[in-house]
Amino acid sequence: MPQCPAARIGDKRDDIDTPALVVDLDALEANIAYMAEFAAASGVRLRPHAKTHKCSAIARLQIEAGAVGVCCQKVGEAEAMANGGVSDVLVTNEVVGARKLERLAALSKRITVAVCADNAENVDALDAAAAKYDTVLSVLVEVDVGAGRCGVRPGEEALDLARRINSAPNLRFGGIQAYHGPAQHVRSHEERALTIAKGGDALRHTLELLKADGLECDIVGGAGTGSYAFEAASGLWNELQVGSYVFMDHDYALNLDASGGPVDTFRHSLTIKTTVMSTPSPTLVATDAGLKAYTTDCGLPALVDRPHGSIFKAADEHTMISFSEPEVRPALGEALYLIPGHCDPTVNLHDWIIGVRDDRVECLWPVDARGAVF
Amino acid sequence: MPQCPAARIGDKRDDIDTPALVVDLDALEANIAYMAEFAAASGVRLRPHAKTHKCSAIARLQIEAGAVGVCCQKVGEAEAMANGGVSDVLVTNEVVGARKLERLAALSKRITVAVCADNAENVDALDAAAAKYDTVLSVLVEVDVGAGRCGVRPGEEALDLARRINSAPNLRFGGIQAYHGPAQHVRSHEERALTIAKGGDALRHTLELLKADGLECDIVGGAGTGSYAFEAASGLWNELQVGSYVFMDHDYALNLDASGGPVDTFRHSLTIKTTVMSTPSPTLVATDAGLKAYTTDCGLPALVDRPHGSIFKAADEHTMISFSEPEVRPALGEALYLIPGHCDPTVNLHDWIIGVRDDRVECLWPVDARGAVF
Repeated sequence: MPQCPAARIGDKRDDIDTPALVVDLDALEANIAYMAEFAAASGVRLRPHAKTHKCSAIARLQIEAGAVGVCCQKVGEAEAMANGGVSDVLVTNEVVGARKLERLAALSKRITVAVCADNAENVDALDAAAAKYDTVLSVLVEVDVGAGRCGVRPGEEALDLARRINSAPNLRFGGIQAYHGPAQHVRSHEERALTIAKGGDALRHTLELLKADGLECDIVGGAGTGSYAFEAASGLWNELQVGSYVFMDHDYALNLDASGGPVDTFRHSLTIKTTVMSTPSPTLVATDAGLKAYTTDCGLPALVDRPHGSIFKAADEHTMISFSEPEVRPALGEALYLIPGHCDPTVNLHDWIIGVRDDRVECLWPVDARGAVF
Repeated sequence: MPQCPAARIGDKRDDIDTPALVVDLDALEANIAYMAEFAAASGVRLRPHAKTHKCSAIARLQIEAGAVGVCCQKVGEAEAMANGGVSDVLVTNEVVGARKLERLAALSKRITVAVCADNAENVDALDAAAAKYDTVLSVLVEVDVGAGRCGVRPGEEALDLARRINSAPNLRFGGIQAYHGPAQHVRSHEERALTIAKGGDALRHTLELLKADGLECDIVGGAGTGSYAFEAASGLWNELQVGSYVFMDHDYALNLDASGGPVDTFRHSLTIKTTVMSTPSPTLVATDAGLKAYTTDCGLPALVDRPHGSIFKAADEHTMISFSEPEVRPALGEALYLIPGHCDPTVNLHDWIIGVRDDRVECLWPVDARGAVF
């Protein structure tokens, strides 16, 4: 059930209760603006992924800055975005099961909806659901460009499925989904570029086959915060589906740029505010945020502005931090800020995003699609 | 924001949408009954930890079976339990910050509340909050019996803090909190027993000091699902604070019993129902549950009743499972069940627990304290 927000609008940053998800609005807006300008300058469309923020207020900021709509991973996320005023959603995932397909068809009566498929049987089920709702669903073929997750193989397999979509009475062939998840976290700039280039070769071949068959791709989608510049420069992809850039995970900041230094294009706009709740030794603290306030699937969070502190353990409701000497150990009740290793599942733990500017709470945004797993 | 439940009461198990948190009610009730009988037979009180289920409906079942109340980790959890009809809550954690302390004091006007402390300054703040609300708060001294997290050292440090609580006008000394978290996951039965016994020695000494000083302990609390039998047999602890036994994490089932076999006292009552949403190769499937439906901080989930399948990756919204040969690979749309590695943070992702008996949905329980991190 939803919890009360940990602050009220107008509160000072210092008065935000903890743990809480705090977003620096200046940093968020700078990230949104940068990516919008980048996409425009690159001549590609921007369709940011809402799986990161699950928040229609942020989706609307992205669209105001030039995005054509958003991506979602789940029908429930798409419904939440539609309820929050977003009018164009691509579900970058397969949707299986009659009830979900009918929800998708129903949603397409209200907003522009597209979805991915990698299976002929599923294409038929999509067509049946669209027919039941007297609508036409746009369906993209997901192609596995090296990620090893979902998707058909590039080339003939993709062509076959595109033809099946194209010939289904209540479906429209919408294009190709070609996202390489693991590539996002390849640390070396060169290897990251090579991984995307390799996927690009497979994609190029597929696009040529489709073209020869008279099948036009409205969307050729993919890219993430680790790789978007490569897809944008390829001349193959026409939509960037970046998500994490709005918040900037700690994990993404471990990627290296062309010069070998850490990627610093985006600012860490999202932090977990936490409070020292125990000082078990002169150099140790336990804070009040743990695995129910952030996730550790991409490692422990990073500590903000405390160079002498080192996070060494995350328990369910505690973060354990050691300090190099007693003089630098924060006192009981002091606030610390953590940058999550992985923002997407971390945001999904919280009901509210607390937006702060100039040390004042400026907005409280509901995480509308929190928990929208189906 | 809360999501719709993935089923309706009366639905068949097969019709539950996915991913969803599904509880086998027979198994849950058997686990609840076993622990209640064990505590009664051992002559100790049972105060199950609500951090596991965060669900007042389950808390009430535990209390009906004989528990004296529940434990919580956060004030927000305690509030949710009180709202759900629980009248006796121990917060087994330190609570720091004026706003939280006032909520605790306010709650103590409605139900019986106790809380832990490990710091003199915090004891004074608790007293001030209780005075403001014209109430008396029961405060336990948390003693570190080897866990290396919060708590004062056993012996004189504990005695000093107990005295300070006892002499505060609006506080009542409530006893000792002595929980050893890491001991729960020590695999060997003998080593687990030794770890608790060592903590017990420190606790015994502390209890003797308190007794000599005329300080009575209402509660001597601790124990978890991995160690409760040792605490119960020690003659030192008088309340068991077990949580996970209601659901039984996959991780806990890796503990060994005295005979060297896996502990099988409790049944895995909680599973994640998930659906095959992609079949990228003849021996691979992707299912529709990932890091937003379960957590991996204690490892990947276990697959139920599919001996030929092996989970090898959890992505945000996908579980990747390989099968030994094509003949045993489930088809698109087939349902699979996963036992989470760690139930506590997994339940905290979901708004609803779907209770099933004899393959029918019998109840939909809100996870009242989901997201109650402060």
